[in-house]
Amino acid sequence: MPELRLNIATNDWVIISTERAKRPDEFRTAEKEDRHLPPYHETCPFCSGMEAEKAGGEIASLNDDDGRWLVRSVHNKYPALSSEGGLEAADRGVYHTMNGVGAHEVIIESRAHNLTTALYDICQLEKIVEMYKARYLELSRDHRLAQITIFKNHGESAGTSLEHPHSQIVATPIVPKHISDRLRSARDFHDEHSQCVYCAMMAEELKSAERVVAENDCFAALEPYASFSPFHTWIIPKTHRSSFGGISAGEIKSFAAILKETMARLYYGLGNPDFNYCIRTSPVAEGEMEYFHWYTAIVPRLSKPAGFEMGSGMWINTSLPEHCAEFLRKVELPALQSSVIW
Amino acid sequence: MPELRLNIATNDWVIISTERAKRPDEFRTAEKEDRHLPPYHETCPFCSGMEAEKAGGEIASLNDDDGRWLVRSVHNKYPALSSEGGLEAADRGVYHTMNGVGAHEVIIESRAHNLTTALYDICQLEKIVEMYKARYLELSRDHRLAQITIFKNHGESAGTSLEHPHSQIVATPIVPKHISDRLRSARDFHDEHSQCVYCAMMAEELKSAERVVAENDCFAALEPYASFSPFHTWIIPKTHRSSFGGISAGEIKSFAAILKETMARLYYGLGNPDFNYCIRTSPVAEGEMEYFHWYTAIVPRLSKPAGFEMGSGMWINTSLPEHCAEFLRKVELPALQSSVIW
Repeated sequence: MPELRLNIATNDWVIISTERAKRPDEFRTAEKEDRHLPPYHETCPFCSGMEAEKAGGEIASLNDDDGRWLVRSVHNKYPALSSEGGLEAADRGVYHTMNGVGAHEVIIESRAHNLTTALYDICQLEKIVEMYKARYLELSRDHRLAQITIFKNHGESAGTSLEHPHSQIVATPIVPKHISDRLRSARDFHDEHSQCVYCAMMAEELKSAERVVAENDCFAALEPYASFSPFHTWIIPKTHRSSFGGISAGEIKSFAAILKETMARLYYGLGNPDFNYCIRTSPVAEGEMEYFHWYTAIVPRLSKPAGFEMGSGMWINTSLPEHCAEFLRKVELPALQSSVIW
Repeated sequence: MPELRLNIATNDWVIISTERAKRPDEFRTAEKEDRHLPPYHETCPFCSGMEAEKAGGEIASLNDDDGRWLVRSVHNKYPALSSEGGLEAADRGVYHTMNGVGAHEVIIESRAHNLTTALYDICQLEKIVEMYKARYLELSRDHRLAQITIFKNHGESAGTSLEHPHSQIVATPIVPKHISDRLRSARDFHDEHSQCVYCAMMAEELKSAERVVAENDCFAALEPYASFSPFHTWIIPKTHRSSFGGISAGEIKSFAAILKETMARLYYGLGNPDFNYCIRTSPVAEGEMEYFHWYTAIVPRLSKPAGFEMGSGMWINTSLPEHCAEFLRKVELPALQSSVIW
C-alpha cells in the first residue's frame, strides 16, 4: 500500500510510492566520478589567470599567505537582477510589476577546475562557508534586498554547464511566496505546540536515528520523513537560529565537516550525481524568529518532476527515506579523506 | 533592467530576465518532428492488440461504429496510489501519515503509436476530452477522493519514456497545498475586487491582445503576464466555472479546437518540444465557486529549474511572454490541418 506522508514544516503531502519503489542502489548513476577533468582548463572563465578577462568583476576574495585567492566572489556576467536602481513598482492594468533590482553573485569555490564539494579538503570548505557568511552579511545591509538565497548547481541536469565548481547568491527585493508560506506553516506549528517545528523534527530524528545520515557536535544530516525525492537530504543546525547570517565560527567548522561528509556519501554512493543545494534562511528584515530555523537542503537530480507534480504540487517519491539514509550511512569513504575529516 | 512580475492569481513573483533574454526562435529544439515513429510498435503496451496482455485492465472506452476503441482508460500497471482501502491516518511521533488510497489511470489517446496532440484530427481530440470528463465525473463520485488531476507528459524531459500518446489521471485523498494556496489567493482577490481573478486577467488579455495565442467562441489561449518559463501557455474558458467537470458539450468542441491549435503552434514553431499539460480544477467536494476558475496550463520543457528556483520558489524566465505570443501567432500551420480545424 502506498503511503502519504505530511511534511509538517511545510504542510506538503508527499506520495511514498511502494509499488514503484526502487532500491537505493538503483539510483546510482553512470560512473561520472571516472570522468577525469583537468585541474586547469584554458577556456574556463573561473580558472586562475582569467580573473580580469572572463569572469565578472571581483567583489571579495579570501587569500592564502602568498596573497593568492582561495575563494572569490564575483559579479555574475549575466545577472538575473540588476544591482543598480531603486525599488520602483508599477501597475499595468490589473497587473503589478517591480524593477528587477537585487544582487547576483558567483562564488568561485576553488582554483582547481576539477573539484567538487565531496572532494575539497575541509579547510577549503570552511573558506567557502566563510565567504557565504561574509557575502550574506554584506548584502543584508542593502535596504533594498529582502531575501538572500545561496545555492549551488552541479551538473547539467541540475541546471549548469559550467564545470568549474561555483555557487551563486541571488538577493531579491521581495520575500518569495515560497518563503512566506514556509514561515506561516512554521508559525502555525509554533502557535499550536509552543515549539519550533524544525527543532521538533530534529529531536524525533535523533531519537529514532533511522533517517540520520551523519551527525556532529553542531549539525545533523538526515533524510526528511516526507522527502519529496530520492536522497533529498537536510542539514540542520542543532542550535536554534532562524538566520544563516548568525552562524558562529565554531558552527562554520562543523557545517563544513558535515557538508563534506554528506556530499562524499552521495558522491561515492551514487556515482557523482548532479545535484542542487540551497541554504534556506529567514528574510533579511526579520530579527531572530523563534518559530523558523535555517537549514540546507541537498537534492540529487535523480527523478524528473512531470505533469502530476506540476498540476498538484505534490511529489511521488519512488524511494523510502529510511532506506536511503541506511544506504548512505553504509557508504565506504576513502581512507585518506576519512583521516582528514572525521 | 530586469523586471519582476506578479502572478496575481497565485501571488508568485517571477523574474523576467532581460539580460539573459533569448529570442523566441532560439528556443526551437532539434528537429524532433522529423523523428518518424511507426504507427504501430509491436512491443508497445498501449498499441492495439496489446489490450489484454500489457496494459492495465480497461476501465472505459469510447468506440467507433465497428466497436473498435478510439480512446481507452486503463488502470496504471504501476499505480502511485491504490484504488483499494480506506482513509486510515496515523501519527508516528510528530509526523502524520495516511493510507495511499486514490486512483491512477492512463488514458490511451489513440490507436496510433505515432501521433501527438498537435497532430490529431479534431474529432479524436474531442473524444479524448470527452473521456477526461467521463472519468472526472465517475471518480468524483468516490467519496474518498478530494482532488482529481488530469495531465499529460510528452517526451523524456517531460518525464515519460513511453512514446504512445497517453494522458494520466491521479486522484488524491487530500487537497494538495498547492491547490489550497491557489484557492486562498483567488479568494483574497475576490474579497478585494468582487471579481474572479482569472476573469479579470482574461478580460485584460483580450483587451490588449499582445499575449493572446489563439481564441475561439468559448476559450482564450494566452501567455500569462508573469509566465514562469518560456512559452508557458494557459487555455482559459470564457464562461466562469470552477470545475472542469462542468464543461458543456459545446465547450468540449471548442476546447478540443483551441487545444489542437495551441499545441500545433508549439509543435511547428518549436520543433515538437517535450511538454507537460495539466487541467487545474477545484476540489471535488466544493460546489461551484465564484472565485476560482478551471484552466489548462501547458509547459514546454525548454528550461531547467535549478538551485535558485528550489531555494526561493521563484523562477527566472529568459523570454518575454509578449514575444512568445507574437511568435506563436505567426507560426504557419499546414494547410490540410488548417482546413480541418479552423
